[in-house]
Amino acid sequence: MREKILDSFIVLEGLDGAGTTTQMHALSRHYEAEGRRYAITNEPTSNPIGRMVRDVLQKRIATTPEALALLYAADRHDHLYNPSYGIVRTLEEGSVVISDRYFYSSLAYQGVECDPAFINAINDFPSPRFIIYVDTPVEECLKRIDKRGEEKELFDRQDFLSEVRKNYEKAFSSLPEGVRLIRIDGTLSPQDVEAEIRKELSPYGL
Amino acid sequence: MREKILDSFIVLEGLDGAGTTTQMHALSRHYEAEGRRYAITNEPTSNPIGRMVRDVLQKRIATTPEALALLYAADRHDHLYNPSYGIVRTLEEGSVVISDRYFYSSLAYQGVECDPAFINAINDFPSPRFIIYVDTPVEECLKRIDKRGEEKELFDRQDFLSEVRKNYEKAFSSLPEGVRLIRIDGTLSPQDVEAEIRKELSPYGL
Repeated sequence: MREKILDSFIVLEGLDGAGTTTQMHALSRHYEAEGRRYAITNEPTSNPIGRMVRDVLQKRIATTPEALALLYAADRHDHLYNPSYGIVRTLEEGSVVISDRYFYSSLAYQGVECDPAFINAINDFPSPRFIIYVDTPVEECLKRIDKRGEEKELFDRQDFLSEVRKNYEKAFSSLPEGVRLIRIDGTLSPQDVEAEIRKELSPYGL
Repeated sequence: MREKILDSFIVLEGLDGAGTTTQMHALSRHYEAEGRRYAITNEPTSNPIGRMVRDVLQKRIATTPEALALLYAADRHDHLYNPSYGIVRTLEEGSVVISDRYFYSSLAYQGVECDPAFINAINDFPSPRFIIYVDTPVEECLKRIDKRGEEKELFDRQDFLSEVRKNYEKAFSSLPEGVRLIRIDGTLSPQDVEAEIRKELSPYGL
């Protein structure tokens, strides 16, 4: 399924604290100013299955790492194909869709605690045309997470994030032809990250 | 994973209306009378993920057939391995565990609307030592469902149940060695079904 590529689908990936959410909003402001049809979205979603994923991450529900990975995959299938609000439908209607995280996050995060072959098998989804990977050192991410002062979710430990970073590299080393990986230095200021992303996307009319 | 067999794990399977729930309770009364340690359970479970499966079946949540199948698999992983209440733990504590439905139900039911290879891949779970299949004609099942007067769930149509029945046969045609399939004529009275099951299990001390 990954050989199938969804045009005008842009995915932001990175460690927690890398700034993917900030950049999603920056991109949306750009498309807004241009008068282009667009939609922003994120994973886990705010739909019922996505809310259950959050319940597990925030330890309101205790389950197994594999069940969590299957919940993520269920949320993702719904996110793509739900007849009312699925990404595929939104793309077909002519919008650019920007998602803060996609299945690469599962390969990276769930791949730490579960068998990577299992995570790979349950995440057989079509690829986005563009992956923007905001590459930020683990120490820098942890500093930013600390500043936020939020209660830490399951996935905020240093060793864990180092493994996640390795898994991202593994996932990106075997992308299907036609998927464009845009790698951005996440230590730059948010404004500079935004400018870099614009520079990379504009040749494609995005 | 299916080559791994869970001893003292008995699974009841059959079409809706076949009487698996009745027979689970009959078995439990028998073990109760014998003073044997046992636990009864069912799928979808009453745990948080299982409740979401029911929300989909009862159309309180709309999603895709594949997302539903992934939810079933998530509920099943939790059912088996949850550290607080998982089946594997209960078996290790010395109980017989009787489950009303297990992954064969997903192969049979979700296999109708989804790619069977996908359903197979996401249901790579250990096998029970015993499968009791209460084999009942579709027409008889539909009659019983009508009598219950319940609101029909997603899966109660005749053609659908015929496909489910075929899928059960397919699943049972390639069981790992050591799994014992006990096939019972579901047109018998509940008392006679119960007697047949006792006759089949007692040689194994169960």
